Amino acid sequence: MSRYQQLAARLKEQIQLGYFAPASRLPSVRQLASEHGVSLSTVQEAYRVLERDQLIVARPKSGYFVAEERKAISRPEQSKPPQRPMDVSLWEDVLAMLLGHGVDAVCEFQHAMPDMASSTLKPLLKSLYELNRHRPQDGMKYGHIQGDAGLREQLSRLTASAGCHLMAEDFVVTSGCQEALSVCLRAVAEPGEIVAVESPGFYGAMQAIKAANLKALEIPTDSRDGMSIDALRLAMDQWPVKAILVTPTVNNPQGYVMPLEKKQALYQLAQEFDIAIIEDDIYGDIAFDYPRPKTLKSFDDDGRVLLCSSFSKTLAPGFRVGWIAPGRYRDKVTHIKYVSSSMCPTLPQLAIGRFIREGGYERHLSAMRQHYRKARDLMLEDIRRFFPEQTRVSYPEGGFVLWMELPKKYDAVKLAERAKQAGIILAPGQMFSATGKYRHCLRFNFIDRNHASREAALRTLSELLPECQLSPS
Amino acid sequence: MSRYQQLAARLKEQIQLGYFAPASRLPSVRQLASEHGVSLSTVQEAYRVLERDQLIVARPKSGYFVAEERKAISRPEQSKPPQRPMDVSLWEDVLAMLLGHGVDAVCEFQHAMPDMASSTLKPLLKSLYELNRHRPQDGMKYGHIQGDAGLREQLSRLTASAGCHLMAEDFVVTSGCQEALSVCLRAVAEPGEIVAVESPGFYGAMQAIKAANLKALEIPTDSRDGMSIDALRLAMDQWPVKAILVTPTVNNPQGYVMPLEKKQALYQLAQEFDIAIIEDDIYGDIAFDYPRPKTLKSFDDDGRVLLCSSFSKTLAPGFRVGWIAPGRYRDKVTHIKYVSSSMCPTLPQLAIGRFIREGGYERHLSAMRQHYRKARDLMLEDIRRFFPEQTRVSYPEGGFVLWMELPKKYDAVKLAERAKQAGIILAPGQMFSATGKYRHCLRFNFIDRNHASREAALRTLSELLPECQLSPS
Repeated sequence: MSRYQQLAARLKEQIQLGYFAPASRLPSVRQLASEHGVSLSTVQEAYRVLERDQLIVARPKSGYFVAEERKAISRPEQSKPPQRPMDVSLWEDVLAMLLGHGVDAVCEFQHAMPDMASSTLKPLLKSLYELNRHRPQDGMKYGHIQGDAGLREQLSRLTASAGCHLMAEDFVVTSGCQEALSVCLRAVAEPGEIVAVESPGFYGAMQAIKAANLKALEIPTDSRDGMSIDALRLAMDQWPVKAILVTPTVNNPQGYVMPLEKKQALYQLAQEFDIAIIEDDIYGDIAFDYPRPKTLKSFDDDGRVLLCSSFSKTLAPGFRVGWIAPGRYRDKVTHIKYVSSSMCPTLPQLAIGRFIREGGYERHLSAMRQHYRKARDLMLEDIRRFFPEQTRVSYPEGGFVLWMELPKKYDAVKLAERAKQAGIILAPGQMFSATGKYRHCLRFNFIDRNHASREAALRTLSELLPECQLSPS
Repeated sequence: MSRYQQLAARLKEQIQLGYFAPASRLPSVRQLASEHGVSLSTVQEAYRVLERDQLIVARPKSGYFVAEERKAISRPEQSKPPQRPMDVSLWEDVLAMLLGHGVDAVCEFQHAMPDMASSTLKPLLKSLYELNRHRPQDGMKYGHIQGDAGLREQLSRLTASAGCHLMAEDFVVTSGCQEALSVCLRAVAEPGEIVAVESPGFYGAMQAIKAANLKALEIPTDSRDGMSIDALRLAMDQWPVKAILVTPTVNNPQGYVMPLEKKQALYQLAQEFDIAIIEDDIYGDIAFDYPRPKTLKSFDDDGRVLLCSSFSKTLAPGFRVGWIAPGRYRDKVTHIKYVSSSMCPTLPQLAIGRFIREGGYERHLSAMRQHYRKARDLMLEDIRRFFPEQTRVSYPEGGFVLWMELPKKYDAVKLAERAKQAGIILAPGQMFSATGKYRHCLRFNFIDRNHASREAALRTLSELLPECQLSPS
């Protein structure tokens, strides 16, 4: 990258982060040159780049100004799913996306994989390989059915910072959060029964509902603060809901954090109707707020909350280390976990336990929080630049995915097909519903590995959009 | 071990393996001394040890003779389980045994873990830690939903030697055989439906039946050649059986290999009634016969057989690498596998794939076959020496577990409790039934890690037996 490009990138970031307000005057060419120790022509070249990108405007005789503020991006409004229990479909769409993993692509927006190239992960990887080298026998035997006791002690410490009071024996280690959710669903509901879920909601949980022969009742959900408690109460008055499955802290796909009072209201409602809550907290530790928001489980004084999580979003999904704090369902959960896949491999548990104990986990989280928050801000700005004004976007308060609602005339499935030909992989919205809603929506991974290629990909998407209108049906 | 002890051990083995027939004359002291290049007193000392153990008798002026043959041990007769579909119980017993894993003990007969100390496993372990060192990123990402393609290619080769014609895309890698069985049960039967199983049968499969809300119909099973086809037909005439779950090649717990014609008859019966077969082949590769017996799947010309296996018995359970060749159920199996635990960790798959490709797997199997066969023979002989004459024992044709039927007046559960106090861990028989049958039976792991301590443990068990009679109920 040449000097002027570097300078342009830096100025652009400062504008996007709001250091220079819209319509405000930028430093003069002479001033910037002396500030950055570069030539006048370097500054002029940098300003020309920003002008071309419509981030700044040049006014003759007056200098350079930040462009006028465009309308802020709106958030999606509260969703309006069908108000009755439904069978889950859309597996074909999920499968197609899963089979896309690992396919060479220019830009992968579809997956929910964290940044795994950070140097803060190095101590963990070193520990893992040393365990494989020096204690291979530990990796060959069956371990404890509830998981390694040392890791469970660390889980007890970690969850304390989310407001929970749990002991090592209160945890069951699982093969990722997917197994955790699947086991919990089977533990709390019998075939044919109804589970209330957020809408949109995580497709892996929806598909687990399908496989357990349960029905999904999608509850209207707000992109700012989550599942509507009023709508949930109405639904529960009308239908024999057996459990609520929610991702209240850094939701997938929307990224919101449900406010604490609302979490409490949700818990009380579950208590009133005497049903279970499955709380998916997989992104909870990478909420941007620190200390992290408290869980629903933190209110749980009668063991009805099954808290599920994993290290797939905070460290790496390939380790397949997740866990459940199943409350009063521990015996049933242990049974179903055992028949599902027996014990979990020991060495990743040992390595992660050590990583937490020695402080590596907190250091890594701290780096990721900063990284993802910055990436979110840049992504939101890029979306504002490239997408139609009526586009709505959720405002993630943690994690690395966001939810986009295109104007209703667009077909995200068509867009995904076209984009794939250009090497850009998308996750269309309908997978995040039991019944194929959200066909005009998309979930984006916004981790900013290479901003130039992300920008180019978003520009390409915006160019493809006009051809991707819904066919009149 | 001193010279005379070495010689005694060698002679004992030769007697047990039948090189010297019962009541036949043994070589003279002088002859043996010259043959083995040891002193006369060493031979005399060795013969004295064998005499004390009642394996040989000294006849004055005539020399040493092998002891008269004792009555051969009888095999268990065909089982007589209740002839109706039952809910599976006994989880508490299974859990208690699982929680015993890893507890310090003098002698562990209860688990079904293979010998993992063999030097033939070294290349695999080396490859695993090298992958962890040099390709950690491969271990962090999500892999292919069906498992690593390279491993699946090797599975295609492996199963060819069991008579199958399968391509890499015909496999779905799972988290051990437990996940394979659990996924297959859910793929072929709906809650409330009936699955026919062997009796006795593997407790992990029984518990998976319970968790999937299915009913088990235990079919009379012969310790020599497996499930009775006649009894199965009768049962299927009477009940709407949805699938048959069998372990026909090196059965767990009995160790028999179902003859090929009988496998064919079983397959044809499934075809006639148009139902699925879940074939658990987890011990198939360590049948003592080489080349290994063909699978039921080898007859499968219409995709109704779901072949399940893993490397837990051939390599080590801790790797948690199993697989399914699901035939016509592939789509459903892929779905349920995905919701159950998402993808499997990649590095163990890469390491095992390489181990097979480079010939290490075959070398290891060959060593294990010899090792286990010899251990079986010694175990059978020890059982004959220590247990009451009416004790019946299965004759494993592979693997490393056998099934013992004590005279009916004994209570194996009581025996297990007493034995535990002496540091000897047992697997009582009732777990191998849906409904608590086989209370007078035990499954033994017969791997001979330390023959002296195994012998001592068996002697202790025989001494405890008289106190372990069934209470009159």
